[in-house]
Amino acid sequence: MDFHAQNKNNKLQGMCKEYAMNPFEMNLDASRANYDPLTPLTFLERSAAVYPDHKAMVHGDWSYTYAEFYDRCRRLASAIAKQGLGQGDTVSIMAPNIPAILESHFGVPMMGGVLNALNTRLDADALAFILDHAECKLLITDREYSDVMRAALKKASVNPVVIDIDDPEAEGGDLISEMTYEAFLETGDPDFEWTGPADEWQAIALNYTSGTTGDPKGVVYHHRGAYLAATGSSMSWNLPKHPTYLWTLPMFHCNGWCFPWAITAVGGTHVCLRKVEADGIYAAMGDHGVDHLCGAPIILSMLINTGDENKAKARPGTKVMVAASPPPAAVLAEMDQLGFDVTHVYGLTESYGPAVYCDWRDDWNDKSVQDRAALKARQGVRYHALSGLDVLDPDSLQPVPRDGATMGEVMMRGNLIMKGYLKNPSTTEKSFKGGWFHTGDLAVIHEDGYIELRDRSKDIIISGGENISTIEVEGLLYKHPAVLEAAVVARPDDKWGETPCAFVMLRDGSSATEQDIIAFCRDNMAHFKCPKTVVFEDLPKTSTGKVQKFVLRERAKNL
Amino acid sequence: MDFHAQNKNNKLQGMCKEYAMNPFEMNLDASRANYDPLTPLTFLERSAAVYPDHKAMVHGDWSYTYAEFYDRCRRLASAIAKQGLGQGDTVSIMAPNIPAILESHFGVPMMGGVLNALNTRLDADALAFILDHAECKLLITDREYSDVMRAALKKASVNPVVIDIDDPEAEGGDLISEMTYEAFLETGDPDFEWTGPADEWQAIALNYTSGTTGDPKGVVYHHRGAYLAATGSSMSWNLPKHPTYLWTLPMFHCNGWCFPWAITAVGGTHVCLRKVEADGIYAAMGDHGVDHLCGAPIILSMLINTGDENKAKARPGTKVMVAASPPPAAVLAEMDQLGFDVTHVYGLTESYGPAVYCDWRDDWNDKSVQDRAALKARQGVRYHALSGLDVLDPDSLQPVPRDGATMGEVMMRGNLIMKGYLKNPSTTEKSFKGGWFHTGDLAVIHEDGYIELRDRSKDIIISGGENISTIEVEGLLYKHPAVLEAAVVARPDDKWGETPCAFVMLRDGSSATEQDIIAFCRDNMAHFKCPKTVVFEDLPKTSTGKVQKFVLRERAKNL
Repeated sequence: MDFHAQNKNNKLQGMCKEYAMNPFEMNLDASRANYDPLTPLTFLERSAAVYPDHKAMVHGDWSYTYAEFYDRCRRLASAIAKQGLGQGDTVSIMAPNIPAILESHFGVPMMGGVLNALNTRLDADALAFILDHAECKLLITDREYSDVMRAALKKASVNPVVIDIDDPEAEGGDLISEMTYEAFLETGDPDFEWTGPADEWQAIALNYTSGTTGDPKGVVYHHRGAYLAATGSSMSWNLPKHPTYLWTLPMFHCNGWCFPWAITAVGGTHVCLRKVEADGIYAAMGDHGVDHLCGAPIILSMLINTGDENKAKARPGTKVMVAASPPPAAVLAEMDQLGFDVTHVYGLTESYGPAVYCDWRDDWNDKSVQDRAALKARQGVRYHALSGLDVLDPDSLQPVPRDGATMGEVMMRGNLIMKGYLKNPSTTEKSFKGGWFHTGDLAVIHEDGYIELRDRSKDIIISGGENISTIEVEGLLYKHPAVLEAAVVARPDDKWGETPCAFVMLRDGSSATEQDIIAFCRDNMAHFKCPKTVVFEDLPKTSTGKVQKFVLRERAKNL
Repeated sequence: MDFHAQNKNNKLQGMCKEYAMNPFEMNLDASRANYDPLTPLTFLERSAAVYPDHKAMVHGDWSYTYAEFYDRCRRLASAIAKQGLGQGDTVSIMAPNIPAILESHFGVPMMGGVLNALNTRLDADALAFILDHAECKLLITDREYSDVMRAALKKASVNPVVIDIDDPEAEGGDLISEMTYEAFLETGDPDFEWTGPADEWQAIALNYTSGTTGDPKGVVYHHRGAYLAATGSSMSWNLPKHPTYLWTLPMFHCNGWCFPWAITAVGGTHVCLRKVEADGIYAAMGDHGVDHLCGAPIILSMLINTGDENKAKARPGTKVMVAASPPPAAVLAEMDQLGFDVTHVYGLTESYGPAVYCDWRDDWNDKSVQDRAALKARQGVRYHALSGLDVLDPDSLQPVPRDGATMGEVMMRGNLIMKGYLKNPSTTEKSFKGGWFHTGDLAVIHEDGYIELRDRSKDIIISGGENISTIEVEGLLYKHPAVLEAAVVARPDDKWGETPCAFVMLRDGSSATEQDIIAFCRDNMAHFKCPKTVVFEDLPKTSTGKVQKFVLRERAKNL
C-alpha cells in the first residue's frame, strides 16, 4: 500500500521505457539549491527574520516579539536535544493555551521530535495509556494538572523526563519535578542550529482521538501535511498579515487546527488564554484588539449568552472560525446580529482539523437571515489542498445523488489526510479502504456540491426503518425561544426500534414543558422525526465542547 | 547531485540503522487516500466545482464562467492527446494575453504536456531555435504572428502540428494551417479524464530566458514549484476571493508569474488584454472593476504618463505588483498619489517569477513620501516557500555584512527555484553551485534583512576601481523634473576604465541639456558616480519592458 514508493517504482520503470528519452527527466534532479522538504517550522524562522520586533505573543501581562519567540523555541529544541532525545522521539505536553504549548509546536519538531499535546480533560488512566502508547520520552506539564499527571505517571510504564510549567497565571497545583520550564529553557542554546526534516513525510505531531469506545487512536501528522494545512487555512480564511488571534481553541485539539503554524506564517500575534470563558474572551478582545478566533459551537454560545457589558466589547467584523459540530442556525443568526463574521469549517483529527469550509457565495447575501444561517450551517467544500471530498455509499464507494436528501458517508482524500494511526496498521488500512479516508460522518450533498452533515454513523436514529438525523432535530429545537442547548439521541423502543429522545437545557428565566417542545416540533417537522421524549437537564460535554452523546444514549436507555 | 534521491538513500540506510525501530516510520506510508502530487491543475477543477457560475474570463465582448473555462481546458487537453501527444511532450504557444494562452496553462499539462509560451517579440531565428531546442510537437499561434511564425517554422527542423488562433479581436494576419483553435477544441472531449502528474517533480512548463548573449536557455518548471509559487503569491499579496485581475503582464513571461494558476485558485476573473497600453488598461478598469494587476515598471509609466481622462478611471486601492527592474522612487511616489497600492516584487525566470517581495512594515507608514518610495524600491524579503535568500560573496559564498553598502550577489535556494535548464547540465550545475541558485544580480542587504538590487553583474560600472551601481544613478536621474525615462551603462574610458553614460528620454514639453543633467547629478551624488556623457533618445526595450542595456552599451562604445 506504499503509493509513494509505488510512484517511485513507476517512475523508475518508466525511465527505462520512455523517460530515458525524455529530456524533461534528464539532468534535472532535485538539489540543495532547488528542493527543500516542506515544513511549517520555516514560518517561524521567516517571521523572526522579517518581523523581529512585531509582537508574537501575549499572555496576561507578559508579551514577546518574534525575535524572542524564535529564540525561546530554539532554546527549547536545544534543551530537549541535550536530554538525549532525537529524531522520532515523542515529547508530550499537558497544558492549556499558554506560551509553553505554543513554543512546543516549533521547539519539539525543530530537534526532530514529535509533539504529543494531551487533552487536559482526560483522566489518569487515559493519560497513562497515551504516554505508553506514544512512548513518551519527555513530558512538559502545567502545575494545574500536577495531580492527574502524577497519577498517570504512576500508572504508566514509560519514565519520561518531566518538566514543570510554573505559569504565574496558574491557580494552585504543586510542581512534580526538579526542573521548571523556564529553567529548562535556560539550559538550551538560543543559537541551536536546527535542520528541517530530512523528508517531509516525517512525523511532526501525534494527536489522540477522544474515542468513545475502546482505546484512543494516535493520529500521526507529517511536516508536509502541517505545512499545507496551515497555508490552506490561510488561503481559505484569507488571513491578512499580522492578525491578532485569540487562543479560544485548545492547542491540543488537532494542534489547534494547525493555527500555531498558520498564524506564525503571517506574523500574527498569538493571544494566549488560560481559561476559556466569556469574560476572558471579551476582555482579550477589548485589551488586545483581537480580530480572529476559532472554536467549537460552545465558544459561540459563550459569546452570545453573556451580559451586555461583555457584548459591548465585540468588535464588528471579528472573524470566527467554528467547527467540531454543526452550529445550529439560530446560533449563527445571533452571531450575525452581534457583527461577528462566522466561517463554518469541518474536519476531523485525521484531516489536520479543518479541511472543508462553507465557502460563502455572493448570491447568498440576498437571502433572509434564517436562510443565510441555514446555508452557513452546511459544512461546504474542500480546501485547496484536499483533492477529493464526496458523499459516498460506504459499501460501493459510489457517490450518492446530489439531491440534498440521500445520505451517505463523507469521504476525503489527499494531502490533508493524516499519515495514519500509530502502531495500528489494521485500523489505518480500514480507514483508507478503497483509496478514501472514511470519516464515519453521514451527510447529504447538495446540487451545488456543498456537503451537509446529518450525523455520525453511530449517532443516526433509525425509527420504523426511517433514518432520522439528530442534527436536523436539534436544529429545530434551537429555534424554540426557550431552548438554550439541545441534544437528541436514540432511545430504544419496542415498537419502532428507536425513537428520538431530546435532552434540553432551557434559558435562564424561560420555561417550557415536554408537551410544549413536542408540539413545537410537530408543527415544524415530519412527525416521525419528532422527539417522543424530552428530558430537561445540563448537557455533558467533552473538553472541546462536543456533547457526549454516548452518555446521553446511556441515560436514554435507562429512562 | 540528486539530492532527492540522496534523501531517499539516507532514509533507506537510516531505516536499517534506526528507523526500523521508530514506530513513526512503520506502516505509515503514502497511499491514494492521503497523498497526491502537488499540482496547480487542481485549482481549476476546484473552482469549477465550487464557483461554476462565477465569471472566469473576459475578452472584449466575450466572457465565460468557471464551468465553461474547465470545459474548454479539458477539450484542449483531449484534442492535444488525440494528436498523439503524451507525457513530456512540448506544446508551444505564440499569443498575446488572450483566452487561448490562459487555457493552455491548464489544458496542456492536463494531458501531460509541457507548456512553452513564446515571447511574441522574438524574431524568426530565435523562435526557430526555441522550437527545435524544445522539441515542439504542437504549436498554437495567433494570426497576428503568422508571418514570423511561418518564417520560424521554415527555419526550424521540427515539424509540429500547427493550430491557428483566429481571435476576433486580432487585427490582420492570415491563417497558416487548416485548423483553428476553436475548431480544434471541438475535436476534444469536455469530459476528458485527466490525471495529475504521477510525480510532482514532472515538468509543467518551459520558459526561455531572453539571454542577451548566446542562445536562450530553457528554464524548466515542475508541478510542485508552480503550485507553491501560485499559493505563495496568494499569501504574499493576500489575494482575496474573486479578484478581478487584468492581464497587463505577458503570460509568456514566467507563465505570467504563475498568476494563471494563482488567480484561478481563488476563483478570480481573468480580464484578457490583447494590447497593453494606457487607454486599454484604464478602459478595462472602468468596464470590469479591475482590482489587481501586475507588470514591469513600463506599466507604471503607462499608468502615470497619460491624460487626466484616463486617470479619472483609476480605482483607489487597486493593487499593482511590479517587478522586472527596480521601479524608480519617483515613479512609485506618483503611483502612490494616484491611489494605487503598489507591491514591489523581485524574481527571475529561474524562480517562477516573484520569489522575493518588499513586505511592507507598518512603521514605514510614518515616513515621508520620498522615504516611503525609497523603501518600496527595495526588493525585500523571501516568499514563504523560498527557504533561503541572501547576498553572498560569489566566490566564498559567505554573506556580505548587512550594512546596506557592501555589494554581493543575490542567491536563493528552495522550492521556488526551477528544475533546471533543459538539455544544459553544465549551466544548470554552474548556476546551482554550492547549493545556491546564483542570480547574477548584485545587491546590498540592509540591517533589517531587506535586499536592494544594485545591478546585474554584467551591468555594473567599474570606474577607477570603484563600483558604480547604474540603478542608483538612474534613480537619481528620475528625480530630475524633465526626465521621463533613463538608463545608464558603462562607456569605455582610457583613463578610468569605464565611466557612466546616461541615455535619457525627456518628457513632452520639457527640455534639459547634457550640462543640466550632469550638474543636477553632481549636486546630489558622489561625483565619481555621475554620468560623464548624456545622450538624449528613446530607449530600446524588450517585450517585458526591460531596457536593452546591451544595445545601449554597444552605442556607448561607439560614441
